Amino acid sequence: MKAIQWKNEALILLDQTLLPNEVTTVNCSTCDEVAHAIKTMKVRGAPAIGVSAAYGLVLAAKNNEGEKLTVLKERLEEAKSLLADTRPTAVNLFWALERMARLWQKDDYKNNEELITRLEEEALAIDKEDFDMNKKMGQFGSELIPNKAAILTHCNAGALATAGYGTALGVIRYAFYAGKAIQVYADETRPLLQGARLTAWELMEDEIPVTLITDNMAGYLMQQGKIDLVVVGADRITACGDVANKIGTYSVAVLAKYHGIPFYVAAPASTIDINIQSGKEIPIEERHHEEVRSVGGVLTAPKDVPVYNPAFDVTPSSLIDAIITNQGVLRPPYNESIKKLF
Amino acid sequence: MKAIQWKNEALILLDQTLLPNEVTTVNCSTCDEVAHAIKTMKVRGAPAIGVSAAYGLVLAAKNNEGEKLTVLKERLEEAKSLLADTRPTAVNLFWALERMARLWQKDDYKNNEELITRLEEEALAIDKEDFDMNKKMGQFGSELIPNKAAILTHCNAGALATAGYGTALGVIRYAFYAGKAIQVYADETRPLLQGARLTAWELMEDEIPVTLITDNMAGYLMQQGKIDLVVVGADRITACGDVANKIGTYSVAVLAKYHGIPFYVAAPASTIDINIQSGKEIPIEERHHEEVRSVGGVLTAPKDVPVYNPAFDVTPSSLIDAIITNQGVLRPPYNESIKKLF
Repeated sequence: MKAIQWKNEALILLDQTLLPNEVTTVNCSTCDEVAHAIKTMKVRGAPAIGVSAAYGLVLAAKNNEGEKLTVLKERLEEAKSLLADTRPTAVNLFWALERMARLWQKDDYKNNEELITRLEEEALAIDKEDFDMNKKMGQFGSELIPNKAAILTHCNAGALATAGYGTALGVIRYAFYAGKAIQVYADETRPLLQGARLTAWELMEDEIPVTLITDNMAGYLMQQGKIDLVVVGADRITACGDVANKIGTYSVAVLAKYHGIPFYVAAPASTIDINIQSGKEIPIEERHHEEVRSVGGVLTAPKDVPVYNPAFDVTPSSLIDAIITNQGVLRPPYNESIKKLF
Repeated sequence: MKAIQWKNEALILLDQTLLPNEVTTVNCSTCDEVAHAIKTMKVRGAPAIGVSAAYGLVLAAKNNEGEKLTVLKERLEEAKSLLADTRPTAVNLFWALERMARLWQKDDYKNNEELITRLEEEALAIDKEDFDMNKKMGQFGSELIPNKAAILTHCNAGALATAGYGTALGVIRYAFYAGKAIQVYADETRPLLQGARLTAWELMEDEIPVTLITDNMAGYLMQQGKIDLVVVGADRITACGDVANKIGTYSVAVLAKYHGIPFYVAAPASTIDINIQSGKEIPIEERHHEEVRSVGGVLTAPKDVPVYNPAFDVTPSSLIDAIITNQGVLRPPYNESIKKLF
């Protein structure tokens, strides 16, 4: 089941807020609908957000096909702003928007049709490249996975978080299909339970062995020697290799360091934001308090208890043993290995 | 609202599985009902389990009042076994059962009535002593709490987990009522959410400032300098100072050590099991998989996903800066400071 499907006049998204209890899709035929789907996390995962946003711009263009070319370009700038305002942390969103914007910011189109065709081609290319990059990343990363490895992962960096195949789960998937015996432990990943709802579901669909734990069990498993390595995705990586990812990633990285367990990050090069050095510069999204006070619509805390709900945290590069990209495996010092990449 | 109330012929327990949405009590008039309430966690928290079990034995005695004294004693042994089988990790349960058993294992009772009276007096003493010990512990522990401290706690080691006042929350309560400005961060504590449901509720009832977070946010808060110290309760402490407590405690302790944040344990001396040296000897209860697959009755993961659900973990003494008891604050090396206590 693909998370993102493009059907010429519409973007069909698997509604990831309802998985695994309901497998339903959302039909987006306007850019507004795509923006709403991103904001409400019907589609989520840094690469998937980037791909969806690119298609959102194609929809904005198609829905303004009758306008003058100059007006169409204005509408596209507005659509870009709307999409950019959905979620602040993952950089792939901004990367995809800028890549698309470079097309309409050129002046050499004969007419609207030509621009719209180019935009659609570019969105399709971003989509396809993401899938190909994930597979490549899986191949590179698989070399870090020993046979019989017990692997901890956090959140969902899988096929559902990308155009397909996955980043962290892509590495696991590649290793599994290469014949390695693997046991995955999935952190449930509160508050939105992407690990329980999405990673567990996705791995079970592929018959990759997975065991679900609550987030606070990871340390105990490491203490017992049950985890051989950790692999997670990323929402933004700085030029120095600091990594923003789903809240709780930093705790897992500290626990892995304490127990001498390798901690790997898997992400396409588009996740690297070479404009910033330190993780402190990454904006961290704070989300609704209700996400923490309740689970699946059920109130689980006093209804007016104060809440702190950062959606991401930053793992400093010093806790990361390798960053697996589509262009190869980066090792510390990351400021050098990342510079070489660009 | 007291978690445990004794009404001569019945033990009235606040149903902690339904808090904070429903404030209801469970009426136990037999030992079986008490055992069931402990097993299903209607009453929970190591000291509260000990007190409840003591009353359970009183109920067993009262319900067999008409038997011969020798038969009554047999029934009490059976009741003791039943209660001992409810939950394996917390030692206060076994401590309370042994303390009660010493009474009937003596041979100097004129009749059933005399034994039953002594049992009831002893249960009431255990209950009252627990409350007094908590207050004492609060007083000792309060000296470790600076003014304006931001304190992280895990699970519920509060009035609800004890005969009243609380262990870890007793320390916080004492410091707060001594006029210290305090900010508590409560880990929600999956899977059963004792932090979200009980700690948040209990502190709000007392107007002690509390902010709720998910378990996986603790590391990020420490990284940001938002936590000054950690204080938790305990279910069993070995002669060397290893501490079994709610799952996730160990992760918090590692995170605190990594960030140079003091990590304190508060527990009455009855939580210390001087018969064992290492935490590896403590039996760790594993509970139903449904606890991890669902929240408040709502399925949040694939219904057949494999689960690992240890209810406790063990924090080695090397990660603990002090153990706050009713007899004073213990410091490392704990094998020496604990030996002095006994």
